[in-house]
Amino acid sequence: MPEKGAYIAIDWGTTNRRVHLVAASGRALRSERDDRGVLAMEPTDYPAAIADVRERFGTLPILAAGMIGSNRGWVDVPYVDLPTGFAALAEAVVCPEESVFLIPGVARRQRDRADVMRGEEVQVLGAIAADMAPGDGHFCQPGTHNKWVVTDAGRIVDFATTMTGELFALLKAQGTLAGMLNAPVCDGPAFREGLARGTTCRDLSAQLFGVRAGVLLETIAPEDAASYASGVLIGADVRAQSDSSAGRIHLIAQGTLATLYAAAFAAAGMRVVAIDSDAAFLAGVHGIWEKLQ
Amino acid sequence: MPEKGAYIAIDWGTTNRRVHLVAASGRALRSERDDRGVLAMEPTDYPAAIADVRERFGTLPILAAGMIGSNRGWVDVPYVDLPTGFAALAEAVVCPEESVFLIPGVARRQRDRADVMRGEEVQVLGAIAADMAPGDGHFCQPGTHNKWVVTDAGRIVDFATTMTGELFALLKAQGTLAGMLNAPVCDGPAFREGLARGTTCRDLSAQLFGVRAGVLLETIAPEDAASYASGVLIGADVRAQSDSSAGRIHLIAQGTLATLYAAAFAAAGMRVVAIDSDAAFLAGVHGIWEKLQ
Repeated sequence: MPEKGAYIAIDWGTTNRRVHLVAASGRALRSERDDRGVLAMEPTDYPAAIADVRERFGTLPILAAGMIGSNRGWVDVPYVDLPTGFAALAEAVVCPEESVFLIPGVARRQRDRADVMRGEEVQVLGAIAADMAPGDGHFCQPGTHNKWVVTDAGRIVDFATTMTGELFALLKAQGTLAGMLNAPVCDGPAFREGLARGTTCRDLSAQLFGVRAGVLLETIAPEDAASYASGVLIGADVRAQSDSSAGRIHLIAQGTLATLYAAAFAAAGMRVVAIDSDAAFLAGVHGIWEKLQ
Repeated sequence: MPEKGAYIAIDWGTTNRRVHLVAASGRALRSERDDRGVLAMEPTDYPAAIADVRERFGTLPILAAGMIGSNRGWVDVPYVDLPTGFAALAEAVVCPEESVFLIPGVARRQRDRADVMRGEEVQVLGAIAADMAPGDGHFCQPGTHNKWVVTDAGRIVDFATTMTGELFALLKAQGTLAGMLNAPVCDGPAFREGLARGTTCRDLSAQLFGVRAGVLLETIAPEDAASYASGVLIGADVRAQSDSSAGRIHLIAQGTLATLYAAAFAAAGMRVVAIDSDAAFLAGVHGIWEKLQ
């Protein structure tokens, strides 16, 4: 007899949404992705959107994580504080309607730097629960905002958000480097040269202006500028955030960013453990689902 | 008998233009500032603009520096290479029409970083010529693009451009921090706290996201966010660029940026020598004028 759905897990982000029908075993039976992210929704749109999901996937409990629980989403779900694990997240879920559980994000309230995340915590804890990573690990989740997470004994004990992806997008869209960064970024000699520069420099902002100067002085080919600049940014990010003494980094990513960051870590002499973000998310939601039973 | 004008000196930048009528002694007899910067001009507009300046200031030789000599200006004047001083700049002036001398910029062609400047070199060499700074000094010229210049024996031997001002403007205009940075930046407790953070952190990009997180978690008051973020950016700039062993920095600046950078250097334990940018520019043009005689 085929497995039947026990609940619906939704990774509800800023621009995209992934919906998974999940069996009691935690196995995904069906997955869909669309662009109905938080930015495409008004707060009042969610009840109808939830009804629509249930019509397509079944009248089942729904567990959702990510920006849906932010002040730009459906309801603002209070963050849980560091250190945290499945039990604390499950205790702090908020139900805006019956059998809809919004998983909270995590806040870092240390004096040296405030930080927040919503959604990435589920992937990290899921990767550990599914034995894709050890309980004490270092994690990198690249995106518009990269999350760098440290765990100990299966709990998240620290994290940092870097704006690497957003900085690249801002520089590409406006200002001095605009028009220079339109080529697709790929892992080639220009990216590697940027990486080497970003990993060793202590003046990121000067190296970024150096992209413009290099194109003007013809030491950087115009078609290489985007990959070189991306290498500088990613190299500086890896240098600042990765604890090279850890030796091993768990990279939760997909697509081009997975390739680029894997290259950056390898260049920095670190061993990369690649983890699929959908698989990690599903394992994380399942860990919380089990706590809710 | 009052002094009469010997030449016209123009600091022709990206957005503004300053025109000075200068006596044979080097003294400015009259100065005007307007918004006819390079971005407001087409290349074909310059002959009429020059005629107009002469109509108002007298039919005199014109020496102009800055972006007018760039590929976005009147004619693209080739850069002179490091190290450089008045003699090399005077030798490389370009005359797009009779008695109009465009002063070249300077290029840094080192393998680790390409860099260019146009206009700032005149101020630095002028400050030295006018005894506002010693021949071997460290200079900071804050702006949209900050210039950090090192001189030796009266010549420019190295420099770096940092995009500190532009990064602040980009973050203010678009993306995650947009809408949070609209308050005027001032030297107060929030700026000082940002400075302390920027000076000690090695993760600028994480500290910038920390501004958003701090506002969300209410550890940063919304009205303080702009000054705090500016402090982080300026602090990181000062840490990366200033050679604290030099002990003394020559700050060529005006207005708010002069105040903010002076505070940043003082907080870093450096002695600040404030230099007026107009006076430095006039002394620099006069040094080149003398070489042209």
